Amino acid sequence: MFGTKDHLRAEGGHLTIDGVDVVDLAEVFGTPLYVTSERRLRENARAYREAFAEADVYFAVKANGNLAILRILAEEGLGADVFSAGELSLVRMAGIPGEKILFNGNSKRTEELEMAVEAKVRVSADSLDEVSALSEVASEMGEVAEVAFRVNPDVSAKTHPKIATGLKTSKFGIPWQEIVEVYRIAMGLEGVKPVGLHCHIGSQILDVSPFVDAAAKMMDLAAQIVEAGGEIEMMDFGGGLGIAYTPDTLAPTPSELAAGITPIFQEGCRRLGISPRMILEPGRSIVADSTLLVTSVNVVKRAHVNFVGVDAGFNLLARPMLYDAYHHAVVANKMDREDEEKYTVVGPICESGDVLARDRDLPKVERGDVVAILDAGAYGFSMASVYNGQPRCPEVLVSGGGAELIRRGEDESALLAGQVVPARLLR
Amino acid sequence: MFGTKDHLRAEGGHLTIDGVDVVDLAEVFGTPLYVTSERRLRENARAYREAFAEADVYFAVKANGNLAILRILAEEGLGADVFSAGELSLVRMAGIPGEKILFNGNSKRTEELEMAVEAKVRVSADSLDEVSALSEVASEMGEVAEVAFRVNPDVSAKTHPKIATGLKTSKFGIPWQEIVEVYRIAMGLEGVKPVGLHCHIGSQILDVSPFVDAAAKMMDLAAQIVEAGGEIEMMDFGGGLGIAYTPDTLAPTPSELAAGITPIFQEGCRRLGISPRMILEPGRSIVADSTLLVTSVNVVKRAHVNFVGVDAGFNLLARPMLYDAYHHAVVANKMDREDEEKYTVVGPICESGDVLARDRDLPKVERGDVVAILDAGAYGFSMASVYNGQPRCPEVLVSGGGAELIRRGEDESALLAGQVVPARLLR
Repeated sequence: MFGTKDHLRAEGGHLTIDGVDVVDLAEVFGTPLYVTSERRLRENARAYREAFAEADVYFAVKANGNLAILRILAEEGLGADVFSAGELSLVRMAGIPGEKILFNGNSKRTEELEMAVEAKVRVSADSLDEVSALSEVASEMGEVAEVAFRVNPDVSAKTHPKIATGLKTSKFGIPWQEIVEVYRIAMGLEGVKPVGLHCHIGSQILDVSPFVDAAAKMMDLAAQIVEAGGEIEMMDFGGGLGIAYTPDTLAPTPSELAAGITPIFQEGCRRLGISPRMILEPGRSIVADSTLLVTSVNVVKRAHVNFVGVDAGFNLLARPMLYDAYHHAVVANKMDREDEEKYTVVGPICESGDVLARDRDLPKVERGDVVAILDAGAYGFSMASVYNGQPRCPEVLVSGGGAELIRRGEDESALLAGQVVPARLLR
Repeated sequence: MFGTKDHLRAEGGHLTIDGVDVVDLAEVFGTPLYVTSERRLRENARAYREAFAEADVYFAVKANGNLAILRILAEEGLGADVFSAGELSLVRMAGIPGEKILFNGNSKRTEELEMAVEAKVRVSADSLDEVSALSEVASEMGEVAEVAFRVNPDVSAKTHPKIATGLKTSKFGIPWQEIVEVYRIAMGLEGVKPVGLHCHIGSQILDVSPFVDAAAKMMDLAAQIVEAGGEIEMMDFGGGLGIAYTPDTLAPTPSELAAGITPIFQEGCRRLGISPRMILEPGRSIVADSTLLVTSVNVVKRAHVNFVGVDAGFNLLARPMLYDAYHHAVVANKMDREDEEKYTVVGPICESGDVLARDRDLPKVERGDVVAILDAGAYGFSMASVYNGQPRCPEVLVSGGGAELIRRGEDESALLAGQVVPARLLR
């Protein structure tokens, strides 16, 4: 029923996650609720570690910033791709060592550059302007920052335009035609030590071939850099492997990705006589399918279509609104029912785009039913807001047959945080 | 230079808001920073109160949930359109009385219905299912809830599909063909007292005619309800008036809206011999143009286009990402420079869609410049998230030549709020 997602089962008419009844979780912790399978998370991490035994796997923290989840990934030996001071703080607290962190970003504040230098983490530079800024910052601090260069490889990956990052027209990286020159200039700057190249061609990519194209292009650029006298200690091929959001999608496995790019990397290194570290930056494919968003039905409305109004909206899961993304939805308390009708599941937010699942076959839905949205672990809570006065919900971790709270839900007081009303307005 | 936005000026090469130097504000409060003109806010509120002297004006709180701003609008006599328990709490704290609040929502939790009854605010019911739930809740509490009915008028308003709410296919409201029957049923239910009709056809609408169409349709429905023996104490025509985001847009004024719909309302009431209260629910047109989002330039990158990387992204202003919305951008410290080039202003978020302003003519931009994004008061901070580890920024209110903090900015600790790491993961 759930393809390779064997942490999910239908048992006694209820959805279970690693044997724990999702309807019980909704009752105990309330809804909306994010629920993560620790086992699935570890399995996903291990699949990468095994497929890329000789490489470092850096988790893309933007996909999920929960500390318990990061701690588990740290235990599995993963490093981290961070994009801000905030994400760097999180992964350091989760115990990921500085040498397994890459500080990415297309628009870093000066304080972020300082923080990266202070924490001795490598920086991926997005432009010559930024390399100069980093050089100034590090020199002033009497340090030498190791810097990789984000390459814009101009490789087209078939995905949603908002998350295709390797196109010439995207805001990310240094055009590949300029990279050798930028590397050369950086080699002459104080306070920075160029150590390699980095690319990331996009997200939710379901075909290995663009990764292969990008890897080949990256190894060509490495060759030109070596020829120009540069050193290459790391080659970061980014993340972006897609997952099977729909039941009939076939997503490549980490092994299939490895089979595509590892030979290109190894052959290139042999040819150049270099032995850099290979790095991958998966986010979604580590965490997405480990997690459900569990939500209760507030109302059923029969209009031109049947609407199911639930208590989670795009404030908690923005992907359907942002990218017209599909998330599979099931009625967790009616897994054995076959009296299906078409329903559109909508959230409580005052925008027409607040639709979680459109035109789905679901068993007859009633007020009080519990709907589970699958594959919500990536870009779910991490993009959540309190828009429309909706506090952010709790997160729980399911493990060994039990469930633990890993983030307390907010209440209305979250809306007041930091607010100050000048006294003259309190008359 | 700024059209009717006379709170904005270029003085001595700097942008000022009500005479306060925006570059100074950036220095004192840091960036990113939301800056609101109290004067402009009050003027916008008064323009509505004058245009609709006989009507109640309910501010759509989802546009901006800042308490100081709500307090100012309360002082100007505005009521509130709320969509959740959280928004109801906010407006009550801001001192808006219960009788000037309408509790809207297409998917309300039972506790929200209870809260509405408890607070004695009118509820706009989105479906028959919800009216029944409200009837149960209110009866059990021994109360009678006044209820209006959200009508889906099937009126097409030319706007972005994600914010067109009056189409048949939208999730909102009861199909207009069914409204009389639902009203009739509700009249027979315990615990609820039907008091009128409510519609809202969309947002950022730049033409008065769809409002006129909707008002006419609403008055026809009112006639049918009166004929069926129903009472009409309120007619809520919603909000949705657009504003001039681009310098060459002409947006209708509140007076022009009033000229379009008030005669239809008054003539209908006369014909039916009823005297309901007319209600409007503006959000954007009250608050959008009162506020700037001020952001600093981290980096300038010359690639296939010239990118300006700033410190605010779609975490703070989602509209360009969500709706391909245009926001005017100026370089606040170079208002007198004419050496323009084309630039694309991008945020620090790791998504290609994180573009605040595309292909704009700006004076030569350098690291450290201050960019002001106009018309950011509606759906700006209210949709903000901490995505990508970016804490939410402060808000200040400019008034009488000075500036006051009205929301403290978050720091990285905001990312930790509520997080719990199970002890077994802390080994």
